[in-house]
Amino acid sequence: RVNGDRLWDSLMDMAKIGPGIAGGNNRQTLTDSDAEGRSLFKTWCDDAGLTMGIDQMGTMFATRPGTDPDALPVYVGSHLDTQPTGGKYDGVLGVLAALEVVRTMNDLGIRTKHPIVVTNWTNEEGARFAPAMLASGVFAGVHSLDFAYNRKDPEGNLFGDELKRIGWVGDEEVGARKMHAYFEYHIEQGPILEAENKQIGVVTHCQGLWWLEFTLTGKEAHTGSTPMNMRVNAGLAMSRILEMVQGVAMGEQPGAVGGVGQVFFSPNSRNVLPGKVVFTVDIRSPDKAKLDRMRAKIESEAPGICDALGVGCSIEAIGHFAPVTFDEKLVTAVRSAAERLGYTHMNLISGAGHDACWAAKVAPATMVMCPCVGGLSHNEAEEISKEWATAGADVLFHAVVETAEI
Amino acid sequence: RVNGDRLWDSLMDMAKIGPGIAGGNNRQTLTDSDAEGRSLFKTWCDDAGLTMGIDQMGTMFATRPGTDPDALPVYVGSHLDTQPTGGKYDGVLGVLAALEVVRTMNDLGIRTKHPIVVTNWTNEEGARFAPAMLASGVFAGVHSLDFAYNRKDPEGNLFGDELKRIGWVGDEEVGARKMHAYFEYHIEQGPILEAENKQIGVVTHCQGLWWLEFTLTGKEAHTGSTPMNMRVNAGLAMSRILEMVQGVAMGEQPGAVGGVGQVFFSPNSRNVLPGKVVFTVDIRSPDKAKLDRMRAKIESEAPGICDALGVGCSIEAIGHFAPVTFDEKLVTAVRSAAERLGYTHMNLISGAGHDACWAAKVAPATMVMCPCVGGLSHNEAEEISKEWATAGADVLFHAVVETAEI
Ligand SMILES: NC(=O)NCCC(=O)O
Ligand SMILES: NC(=O)NCCC(=O)O
Repeated sequence: RVNGDRLWDSLMDMAKIGPGIAGGNNRQTLTDSDAEGRSLFKTWCDDAGLTMGIDQMGTMFATRPGTDPDALPVYVGSHLDTQPTGGKYDGVLGVLAALEVVRTMNDLGIRTKHPIVVTNWTNEEGARFAPAMLASGVFAGVHSLDFAYNRKDPEGNLFGDELKRIGWVGDEEVGARKMHAYFEYHIEQGPILEAENKQIGVVTHCQGLWWLEFTLTGKEAHTGSTPMNMRVNAGLAMSRILEMVQGVAMGEQPGAVGGVGQVFFSPNSRNVLPGKVVFTVDIRSPDKAKLDRMRAKIESEAPGICDALGVGCSIEAIGHFAPVTFDEKLVTAVRSAAERLGYTHMNLISGAGHDACWAAKVAPATMVMCPCVGGLSHNEAEEISKEWATAGADVLFHAVVETAEI
Repeated sequence: RVNGDRLWDSLMDMAKIGPGIAGGNNRQTLTDSDAEGRSLFKTWCDDAGLTMGIDQMGTMFATRPGTDPDALPVYVGSHLDTQPTGGKYDGVLGVLAALEVVRTMNDLGIRTKHPIVVTNWTNEEGARFAPAMLASGVFAGVHSLDFAYNRKDPEGNLFGDELKRIGWVGDEEVGARKMHAYFEYHIEQGPILEAENKQIGVVTHCQGLWWLEFTLTGKEAHTGSTPMNMRVNAGLAMSRILEMVQGVAMGEQPGAVGGVGQVFFSPNSRNVLPGKVVFTVDIRSPDKAKLDRMRAKIESEAPGICDALGVGCSIEAIGHFAPVTFDEKLVTAVRSAAERLGYTHMNLISGAGHDACWAAKVAPATMVMCPCVGGLSHNEAEEISKEWATAGADVLFHAVVETAEI
C-alpha cells in the first residue's frame, strides 16, 4: 500500500502555489504559478531519483528505469494546471499519486521490467488556451505543434510565447515517446461514486465532446434611443440559443449534457446593445451518435434563431474528442487491484475529458477514479478525503506494478 | 449664424484624442485620453477669453462675463467623455457647439446681460462608472459626492481616485452654482428626425430610466461531469430573464424599450457552469407609470425564473431618472429660433438620458437635437453631416442669446 499521509502532504504543499480566492487554486497553465508548481514537482522527482525529460509542449516526463532496456515504459500521470477558480485535486491528485507510486516502489525496493514515467501534461484544462488536453492532443497527433503554439488566451498571448516566457520549452519532439501503457488517476468530478457509496471508479469509457464557439453579430446601438423594432439584438439571440441548447440536451436524456460556461459581450457597456456576442457551447455524450446529433441540431436551429432577429451567426468547432473505450486488459487490471485490496468499486464513464482520452489513441490506456464531495469540481470548494485519495492511489500502485511487471 | 466650418474643425480635432478602433472614439471618463481632451478644450476656452472653474466632480465651467453683475449665468454644455466604442459627436457636439456660440458672440461683439458658461460635465456616459450623468446628478443633489467618489469601474478603481489621478479635481463645491437657464445640444441618437426629414428636434421631454443590476448565484460546476438534473445554471436563468425583459418591453409598445448591454459570467471558463452571472437591465419610457410597471413586472417575474432553476437572484437599482418635462419658455425659445432661421423642426422626446435631465431639477432647462445617420449612436460608426451640426448650433446660438438678453 502507498503512504497516504505523504501523498496528502504533497497535495497540500502543491496547493500553496497559486492559491485561489476561496480555498482552491488559480494555477492556470503557463502562468508564473504554473512555473512554480513545475519547479516543486521537479524537486520531488529529483529526490525520488527520477530523470526528467521535457518535450516541446512543456510536458514533463520523470523516468524510473526498468530492468529490461528494451521494454517500453508505463506512463502514469495527469496535470498540474488548474481552472481560474479550480480545486486542489483536479489533475494534481493524478500527478502526485503517480509520484507516490514510485516513492512507494522506492521504499519497498520494487524493480519492474518496464520503466515507470511520472507525467505532467501541459494545459489539460483548456481554460486559458482552448482546446483542453492540448499537449496530450499534440502527443497523440491530433493537433500539430504549430496549431498549439498559436492558441491565444483572452488577452491575445500566444501559447508558444507563454511557454517560452515561463522557461519550460523542452527539446524532445512531441509524441516521439512510445508507451507500453498509460494510467491516469483522477477525482470523478461527478456525483456517482459518492451516491453509490463506492471507493473506486473503474473507468471503462470517456464521453465525447464538442466545443462550438458562436460569434453573433448584432448592431451596436443605444439601449435608450433605439426603438425595439430597430434593434439587431445579438444578446437576445444568445439567450435564445442557450435555451435551445438546454432543450437539445434535455431531449437526449439520459446520457448527454449541454451548457455554456463562457460568454463575452462587446462592447459590454450597460447602455449599448452588443454589436458582438461570443460564447462557447459545451456538449457531451458517451454515445457518438447522440453527440453528433446534438451538434447537428444546434447547428441547424441556431441560424434560424439569429435570422429572426437579423443577427449574424457563425459557428466554429474549437474542441472535440470522440467517445473513448479504454483498454480491456488495463481496465481489468484496475478492477482486480480494487478487488485484491478490498475496496468497493463500480464501472464508470468519465464525464470530463482527460489526457488519457488522447493517450488512448497511441497506447493501451485507462483511468482510476475516486469520489469527490457532492460531485463538485471546477469549483474552489472541490473536496475529497485523505482516505478516498489513498484508496485510489493504492489501486493505481497495484495496477501499475502489475502492468510494469516485477 | 455660427461658423459651421470652425465648429466642424474643432469636432475633428477633438476626435483625434482617444481614437477608437473603427473610426470613432474611446475616450472614457477619467482616462488619460479624457485628461488630454479636457486640456485641449481648456486651451480653446482660454483662447476665447473664458475663465475656467472646476468643481470637485471635475466638471468644467468656462465663463464669458455678462453686463449685469447680479444676473445668473446661462449654462450651455454637454460632455466630452465617450463610450468604449463611441462616436465622435455624442456629447462632444454639445460642448463644442456651446464654445462655438461664445466664439460667434466674440466675432460679432455681442454682449449679454447674463454671463454664458460653457460646460463639460464629468462622466455622462456611465460606461466606466455607473450610473450615467454622474456629475450633473451630484450637481442637482440627486447623489452625494461621497456616493460618486466611491463608484467602481470593472477593474475596481474608484471614481474619486481616478479623478485625482488625471489631475482634474477642482475646488468648487458641487452644485453651489445657480443657473438662470441650462441648454444642451445633442445628436438625437435615434431615427426619428432623419425619418421625418427634419433639421431640428425641439426637445420637450426626456424618457425615464431604470438600470436594474442582477446578480444571479448558481453553482460553479464541471460542464462535462455534472448531470443536467444537478445543475444550478445561472447562465440559463440569465437567458430566461433576457427573454422575459424583451417580452415585458414588447408588451408596453409603443413608448417603451428594454434590453441588456452588459453581462459578466464568472469564472467565464468554457468548461465551468457559471457560479455567478451579473448583468444590467436597461428599461426606459417617457411614461412614468409604464416605466415603473415594467420594473415591477421584471422584479416580480425574475425570482420565479431563478427559483425554478435553484438559482439565487438579487436585484439592485443602480441607475434611475424619472421622465422629465423641459421648461416651456426655453422650449419655445428653441422652437422660435428654428422658425426664425428657417429650419424644419418637430417636437421630440429624448430617448437617451442627458445632463439636461438632472439640470432640469435645479434650473429651467431644455435641449436642441440634430439628426444622426440611421439613428445610430453608441457605435463608432455614428455619423452626422456638417450641415446638420451647423443648423443645430445656429438654433442654440439664437436661443441662448435670447435667453441671456442682449
Ligand atoms: N478533467 C477536466 O476537467 N478536464 C478539462 C477538460 C474538460 O472540459 O473535460
Ligand atoms: N446620451 C447618452 O447616451 N447618455 C448616456 C446615458 C444613457 O444611457 O442614456
